[in-house]
This record gives sequence, structure tokens and C-alpha cells, in this order.
Amino acid sequence: MATHASDNGSGHAEWRFARAAKEGALAVAGDKMSIRAARFKISASVDGRDPRPVLPLAHGDPSVFPAFRTAAEAEDAVAAALRTGKFNCYPAGVGLPEARRALAEHLSSDLPYKLSTDDIFLTAGGTQAIEVVVSVLAQPGANILLPRPGYPNYEARAGLHNLQVRHFDLIPERGWEIDIDSLESIADKNTTAMVIINPNNPCGSVYTREHLAKVAEVARKLGILVIADEVYGNLVFGDTPYVPMGVFGHIAPVLSIGSLSKRWIVPGWRLGWVAVCDPNKILQETKIIASITNFLNVSTDPATFVQGALPHILGNTKEDFFRRIIGLLAETSEICYREIKDIKCITCPHKPEGSMFVMVKLNLYLLEGIHDDIDFCCKLAKEESVILCPGSVLGMENWIRITFAIDSSSLLDGLERIKSFCQRHKKKNLLNGH
Amino acid sequence: MATHASDNGSGHAEWRFARAAKEGALAVAGDKMSIRAARFKISASVDGRDPRPVLPLAHGDPSVFPAFRTAAEAEDAVAAALRTGKFNCYPAGVGLPEARRALAEHLSSDLPYKLSTDDIFLTAGGTQAIEVVVSVLAQPGANILLPRPGYPNYEARAGLHNLQVRHFDLIPERGWEIDIDSLESIADKNTTAMVIINPNNPCGSVYTREHLAKVAEVARKLGILVIADEVYGNLVFGDTPYVPMGVFGHIAPVLSIGSLSKRWIVPGWRLGWVAVCDPNKILQETKIIASITNFLNVSTDPATFVQGALPHILGNTKEDFFRRIIGLLAETSEICYREIKDIKCITCPHKPEGSMFVMVKLNLYLLEGIHDDIDFCCKLAKEESVILCPGSVLGMENWIRITFAIDSSSLLDGLERIKSFCQRHKKKNLLNGH
Repeated sequence: MATHASDNGSGHAEWRFARAAKEGALAVAGDKMSIRAARFKISASVDGRDPRPVLPLAHGDPSVFPAFRTAAEAEDAVAAALRTGKFNCYPAGVGLPEARRALAEHLSSDLPYKLSTDDIFLTAGGTQAIEVVVSVLAQPGANILLPRPGYPNYEARAGLHNLQVRHFDLIPERGWEIDIDSLESIADKNTTAMVIINPNNPCGSVYTREHLAKVAEVARKLGILVIADEVYGNLVFGDTPYVPMGVFGHIAPVLSIGSLSKRWIVPGWRLGWVAVCDPNKILQETKIIASITNFLNVSTDPATFVQGALPHILGNTKEDFFRRIIGLLAETSEICYREIKDIKCITCPHKPEGSMFVMVKLNLYLLEGIHDDIDFCCKLAKEESVILCPGSVLGMENWIRITFAIDSSSLLDGLERIKSFCQRHKKKNLLNGH
Repeated sequence: MATHASDNGSGHAEWRFARAAKEGALAVAGDKMSIRAARFKISASVDGRDPRPVLPLAHGDPSVFPAFRTAAEAEDAVAAALRTGKFNCYPAGVGLPEARRALAEHLSSDLPYKLSTDDIFLTAGGTQAIEVVVSVLAQPGANILLPRPGYPNYEARAGLHNLQVRHFDLIPERGWEIDIDSLESIADKNTTAMVIINPNNPCGSVYTREHLAKVAEVARKLGILVIADEVYGNLVFGDTPYVPMGVFGHIAPVLSIGSLSKRWIVPGWRLGWVAVCDPNKILQETKIIASITNFLNVSTDPATFVQGALPHILGNTKEDFFRRIIGLLAETSEICYREIKDIKCITCPHKPEGSMFVMVKLNLYLLEGIHDDIDFCCKLAKEESVILCPGSVLGMENWIRITFAIDSSSLLDGLERIKSFCQRHKKKNLLNGH
């Protein structure tokens, strides 16, 4: 029973907030800007009568599978911090000093210089870290360079803060390397930063030291800072070792985004960070650091007791745990790459070496009655109860992101179902059988 | 050792992000927009050689005092949820369904209609709830009406999202009631919402049912929605009972902001909410609800295991706990009001009946060499190791916010130190002795 302003005689002509909901940035962007919204929409296509389990191959969160349960030491540390009763209080805006210090030490072990406590800003997951870096760079006319395919939260946050976005391509034939030449052609004097995601989401690629050095050099030439999204840091299982972008922080300043979510398999704990990898202190001099502090002082925080647990999580988690997770991902990425070769309607241009994902091209010309990647994902969900992430949400229409971070039997089951689906929908009048 | 673009021959003229840090919204606002920043600045004035404990009378967080430790049932619920290992996963953007359902039931008990699961959006503390409501209303030219004195996070968030702010006064002589007549004079066709904080931060007042009804009527007349900041909901100990604004949701739509932080004394757990109190479904029709969902789908979340614990926290916390906390606040608010009467340089216009605060006027004409409220707070911190919140951060220069949510001996000690400070700084040439 809706009551409108005009039908109750109370004297106002309309609800004035209605325009915000029609013309505001959130309304204009709608639900197109989030993987979550796409995932919920595709999941809604699942046929409830299918007795088979729904297989979540759309997002990187294997935490519900027993094999991927987090380290006992990490869980113990959070429970112990909670039980002290000392961490029920508000945290300092930028994070508890002892947690920042422990993380600075932890990250420094992979860098040619030492991070200090002041170089670490704790955030409520990688998601808030993205919010921080986008917010501090927002200013009228400014733009930021984002990878395509990429992670759409950058576009979403940029839209909310009126920061313009320009895209550069990742090249599948070159192992999803950045098209470095194009960076110079799309940047201008209003460009403030570029984002590099390594290990890469959604492509599963890992950048070589040489490639990262080239990125740093071009950033320096352009006078921009590098936002290194390293939430999949250390999750590598191919030939290319993980090198943090901060190694090149002396060439161009780097803000590294990280999180416990992926390496510890605890995205629900919501603890992330921005690490300032800038030995020349350019970000301090230019007051970017002051803006980060200002932003965090008026923003929400990771739970204080999770912060309180951080020194113990970092100090006590055994190498065994990390080795086991890497072993699982190595195994499932192999399975995924091998089985995809056998599914004719999708093509994988590059074997995954890191993160939890692989990008595959959808060969629409082999399929009957499938219009695009979203249509593919919705029909697959309906007929096979398999959830995939459509590439158009990531900036690449008619590609698909598949996660292999799931137990191997579910993965095999899921890929088998995708194969059946493709068989069933294959075009009949093609010359050869596939 | 700072390296500038111009001194290394690499070919770029400047670091292009420097302008963002000078001209961006965060840089322009600086650190003036947050209580935290003010508190840190004032705390920095404390003389480290003072052997007495620093007394934190600036902010509402008594969690570190044993008497204010949260309910054992609440702590048990969070520990148990963590230990299941089922809540390490990402939550749904708007909150876990079972947590939303439990909260809808909990809040419905004080309302003349039932809230449904879909009416509840879980947020990372009240702080993120403010971010949500401001973000969904932001659109070019729009404005929002905020109370003065108020809670500066609204101004800060509005500044970041280019939502204009207009202030209405709370009137100390009328028990800090809203100057309702002025609402009509400052609103225009671009006004989308007003904020009412009840029980009131910073004033400690509690609005009567009649006053809230008037607010709803004027909101309806203006065609705006009411954002009811009720994070201090139920924390009342005077003659005026707490009435949620949602009781008048049939007159004008209400978004109620709430949190576990204050009633359960766990601000560090970061669990808040936006409850849609709108039985006529106007916010759904005008798509405000869709915008809230869109926003939360690209934003961080409260920790999943805290969400998982919420049904048990709400269901298991005993009345005894709430009664004990209210009893403590009743006692300390009495002490505070009584002792302030004896300190000549500050005046309290209204005895606190709710929340954790009282606003007092600074009688600068009685003081020698104290320029304003910030100067008062800094010198008090330096000489007496007592931290207070200057009113200018809350929109009222030369007023002071004092919290009484602290154990009574610390409160007495703090008020005694304020008295000594005022004695020591009193103007010498006044006619009578005080």
C-alpha cells in the first residue's frame, strides 16, 4: 500500500529523494558494476529441482571446503584476542600500532628496504583498500589507468568519486602482460596512477621481474604512482616467482594492496592493508599519506580483535599451511587447464600460474542460441547448476572467468558439466564434429 | 633522501598525483573533519612526565574498563561462530540472511509494524551505515540537513561525495530539541533528507514522542526522508523513554542507523546496520533500496563470523547486562552533572538523559589566556592529562563534549582535574572570586 505525496493532502509535491535514486552515481551505475551482483543474478537462474550440488566456480573463496580451512594458528590467534576483552574498543583509524609493526616486518622480508610501522595502513579487507586509494586520488578532471580485463571494484569506486577511468589491455597472447606501449598513449597530464594486479585476477598470470621493472619505468616517465593489487601475493605455482611491485618502489612510488583473505583463505575476516612502498618518501612529501590518514579517520575499520591477532597470525602460521594450499592450487589449476582443452566451446590462451582464476575465450560461433557470455552463464546455471563469472563484468565480453580454487572432485564435476552443456548446445551445421 | 622528477633526467616534469593530494576533497578537508583526528591532536599535548593516568573523557568507548566489559553471551557467540569455520567466507553484500532476519525481529518489537529480512542491511559499524546513506543520496546539487551540534562523520562523508550540507540548530534552552521551524526555512527543492540523532550525541538529550512526531510531519511536508541515527538507542536513564523514529515511518520514510557498538560496548566488533522503517514502501518504489544494495555490493562488510554470531548475541544477551550498563551510566551521568555545577568555567544547560555524553558551554570570559575550545582542550591535556572533545569539531565553537561513560572513580578524578585547571586559569580581575 504505497502512499504518494500527491494523494494525502499533506502539501508536498513529491518525495524529493526520488531524483537521487534515479540520477545519483549508484542508480546510474546500477548493478552492472559488481561481480557480486552478476553472481547473484546468475545464481538466481539455477533450477531448484536439480538434485546435484550447485558448483561455485565464479569467485575466489574456497573457504567452505574442508581442504581449504584456514590455519589453526590463525583461528586460535583471533579467538585468543577476542577472549582477552582488550580489543573490544575502537581501533586507531590507521590500525593498531603492534599490528602495523608486525605487518611492516612481514612484508619487508621480500623487499630490498625496510617498511616502517608508518608505512602500513590497515583496512577492512582489500575492498576498503581500493576505496582508500581511489578516494585519495579523486579530484576534478583526474583520471586513473585500469587493466582490461580487471577487477570491477576499481571502476565502481572511481565512478562513485568522479575519478575518470581509462583502460589499457592485457594481451592474452603474451601471457596477459600489460600492453606497455599503450600506457603512454592513453595517459595525459591528468593521469595520476595506474593499477597492476599481480598475481593476476582474472587471468591467473604472474608478471616477471623484468615486466614489473618496465611498468615502474613507464610510471616514472609518466609521473604516476603504481597501485599494486597484490591480494593474491605469494599464491603462485608456475615457473614465474612472485615479485612484489614494491621492489621497484625506488623507481616510482607504489601503494601495495594486500589482504589476509586469499593466502589465509579467510575473506570473511575482512583484514586488508595498503603498504606504502616508497623509499624516496615521495608520497609523504606530496601529502598523499596525509590524505590516506584523513580518509581512514572518517572510515570504518577492520575489527579490532582481528587486528590484535595479526602479529600472532603472521608469526605463528606454519610454512606447512602455505605449502599445502599452494599444492592444492597447483593440482586444481592443472586439472582445470587440462580439462578445458577438451571443451571445444572455450579456449584458454595461457596456463594459470597464480591467483585462483583462469580466463577463457568463449567460442560463440560453435554454439547454437547462446548470445553472449552472460547468456552462456545464465543458461549454464539453469541447466547444469554451475556458476561462472561472465567476462563482460571484468571488461572483456564473451570471455569467462573460472576459478579452480575448489576441491578437485567438485572442479572435475563442474568442468564435466560445462562440457555436457557445450555438447548439447553445439551448432549442428558445422563442417566437423566439434 | 627525496628524489624529484626534475633532478633525475627521466623525462617527466612532476609527479602528477601531487595535485590530488593538494586539491582533492580529502586534502581540502584536511584533518578538520574527524573527531579522531582532533582527539589524536589533543592527546599529543599530554605531558609524558605526568605520573597520573590519562583520562579519556573525549569519546564514547568505555570498553577498556572492566565494569563495562561486554556480555559473556555475546563474546561466546562470536567465539563459537569463529570456531565453526563456516563463517570464513565472504558474506553476501547486504548481510547474512539469518543475521538480517534476527535483527528484523529484534527491532520490530519496538515498532507498530514488522520489519522483514529485506528491510535490514548490515554494515561495518555505524560508520559504514553513514557512508551508505550519504552515498545513495549524493547527486549534483542535492543537499542534506544536519544538526548543529552533530556528529562530524556526516559532514565528512557528504564532502567526499559532493553532497551539500545545511545545518539546523539544536536549542540548549529547550533540552536540545530541534529548531523545527528553521527546517522549513533552510530546505529547498534539492533537499533530500535530514539527520536526527536520538538519544543525542553530543548533547545527551532524548527526544519525546511528541517531538519525533513533529519531525516526521515536517519531513513529510518537505518530502524528505529521515535518517535516524540511533546508535545510542535504548541507552536512556532519565524520564524520557527511548522511542525509535521508525514508529513514525508511516508519516515519512525512515532509515534507522544502529550498531552493537554502544549498547553492547563493543565498538571494535564493527557491526552496524541500516534498518528501513518505511511501511508504505516509498523507498523501495523510488529505488533508494536498490541503490543501497548496489552500494553494499561494492563495499566492505562486517566480518562474516560476527554476522554469524548476531542471532545468538540478540537472542542470548540477558536483560541483566543491559540493566547493569544503564545503571552505571545513570550513576556516572549524575556524578557528571553534579560536579560540573561546581566548575565555574563550564556550564551545562541540560542534564543528560541518554547516550554517553553531555555538552557544556565554555565560559571563556572567566578564563585567562585560553583562546577557544581547542586551546582549552590542548592545555587541559598538557597540564592535567584529561582528554575532552572540543565543540568546534561538532559544529559548536567554545563548547565541550564530555563523556561520562567511564568508571566513576576515573570520572570524579577527571572532573576534579578540570576544576583545578579552571581555578588555575581563572581571570584575576573579576569582581567576585570565581
